[in-house]
Amino acid sequence: METCGTASVPLEEAAADVEAYLAEWLAVRPLPENLRAAIEYAMLGGGKRIRPLLVRLSCEAAGGRTEEAMAAAAAMELVHTFSLVHDDLPAMDDDDLRRGRPTLHRHTNEAMAILAGDAMLGLAFEVLASRAPSRELAGALCVELASATDDMIAGQVYDTLPAFPESLPPMARLQTIHRHKTGALIRCACRLGALSAGARDGELDGITRYAEAIGLMFQVVDDVLDVTQTSEHLGKTAHKDAQQGKLTYPALLGIDASRDEVERLHKEACDALEPLGPAAEPLRALSLWLARRTR
Amino acid sequence: METCGTASVPLEEAAADVEAYLAEWLAVRPLPENLRAAIEYAMLGGGKRIRPLLVRLSCEAAGGRTEEAMAAAAAMELVHTFSLVHDDLPAMDDDDLRRGRPTLHRHTNEAMAILAGDAMLGLAFEVLASRAPSRELAGALCVELASATDDMIAGQVYDTLPAFPESLPPMARLQTIHRHKTGALIRCACRLGALSAGARDGELDGITRYAEAIGLMFQVVDDVLDVTQTSEHLGKTAHKDAQQGKLTYPALLGIDASRDEVERLHKEACDALEPLGPAAEPLRALSLWLARRTR
Repeated sequence: METCGTASVPLEEAAADVEAYLAEWLAVRPLPENLRAAIEYAMLGGGKRIRPLLVRLSCEAAGGRTEEAMAAAAAMELVHTFSLVHDDLPAMDDDDLRRGRPTLHRHTNEAMAILAGDAMLGLAFEVLASRAPSRELAGALCVELASATDDMIAGQVYDTLPAFPESLPPMARLQTIHRHKTGALIRCACRLGALSAGARDGELDGITRYAEAIGLMFQVVDDVLDVTQTSEHLGKTAHKDAQQGKLTYPALLGIDASRDEVERLHKEACDALEPLGPAAEPLRALSLWLARRTR
Repeated sequence: METCGTASVPLEEAAADVEAYLAEWLAVRPLPENLRAAIEYAMLGGGKRIRPLLVRLSCEAAGGRTEEAMAAAAAMELVHTFSLVHDDLPAMDDDDLRRGRPTLHRHTNEAMAILAGDAMLGLAFEVLASRAPSRELAGALCVELASATDDMIAGQVYDTLPAFPESLPPMARLQTIHRHKTGALIRCACRLGALSAGARDGELDGITRYAEAIGLMFQVVDDVLDVTQTSEHLGKTAHKDAQQGKLTYPALLGIDASRDEVERLHKEACDALEPLGPAAEPLRALSLWLARRTR
């Protein structure tokens, strides 16, 4: 259990649960052995597992049981990891280090990293559609996941191959990038959790607004950490944003104003959870933990 | 209408229909303009559209209406094209020519081809889940598509990064590759069509066995065409299999025995359609057309 001020977040326990679920799912899915090994290397090599935790806490906040969240939790982590594996490729970010270990294309080869990423995306829909809490829910959950995945990929394009109109101000560009690139999957994680619990409209709305606030906050914190921390501490290459001349919150606002923005978004997230009452306390604690994290 | 002996196949009409449906879907889906252009270049630049035609004819053979097949038809073509775009990448087949034009990574760049491929896979699930004939069907269709996509990717791995046990004979290796690489999506196209029509178990079984026969036949024909035709005629690089020392039917059996295998599989496909009666006549005609195609 990691704590932060009054925030107590079941990070390790939830990570272990989703890892066990993923390991079991991958073990029963017929796959060529080298592809399975590549997927397991990428999936089961650590990571904070924030998205599966969001699925689970959102499900519980809307009155659902943990088991009902597991298919969506596994699907979210598969999509997230697929995106990391492809982002790290030589033609993309060309990164050697991920979660403190060689990236998948360094560990195996580029063709395998492309195919394993593709397979993880397919497996995400397979686990979600085949293990959703009910047949009726399966389609709705797949719509959410597909739409968020496409928004996330659009965010990668906005970030790395920008085609913005000249007239769009830098802050609007940055928010467009973040809302798509990081925001879409975080929003999806929370909505999948709430939908898996059969959330009412008011609950789903509150959880969606919470997710939009912490999604942006997550990226502002990431931008700040990239400037203020070392590669060793982060387990990935630090100071890359400035080296690549990227649009970031610290670059546009400075570090202090970026930190103020984190506090504002944390409050917005907590306020949005009002309709859910005490059942949403773990989501509030997670928002605080995300605001204070140092890696 | 292309004809072959007695086979009359509505290839051009069906291709035009699915292209119009895809163009409309892509036009309403919010996307960065450069990503949209890349996807449209890959999707709408020709192609035989065999898989969407299979969806449609299988739907009609099981008593469904054409409209009920369109979401699945579009999804199949998106998955098929995603797989071509990624297969053509420098780290994979490194191909410059596809459907008679520069491959997407030659037309744009490698990062865009990776991301556009990823996006096409996401869009496939998005169109299928959001436009399925009913909410109840959406989940079942997504299970089929996801599972076939994963099998197809497994086929790519078996084909390009083989990890077969030493003891497995060449013909068993070749059939494992083909059953996954080409067979899975063709089987999926037929099953999605039948499921979209609400097919009964006996109908679904017959259509599945038809699909498995023509899926293997499709690849045997491809192998033969690679040896016997020119790049100009095929619109893609010919004689690549031999140059790359690949396992193929002509390499294992010779060309004459490969052609006999095509005839045997065509008969098997037609026999499997028995339970569907005259409604399956267009599927029989398509099998004949696929057996006789020269590109």
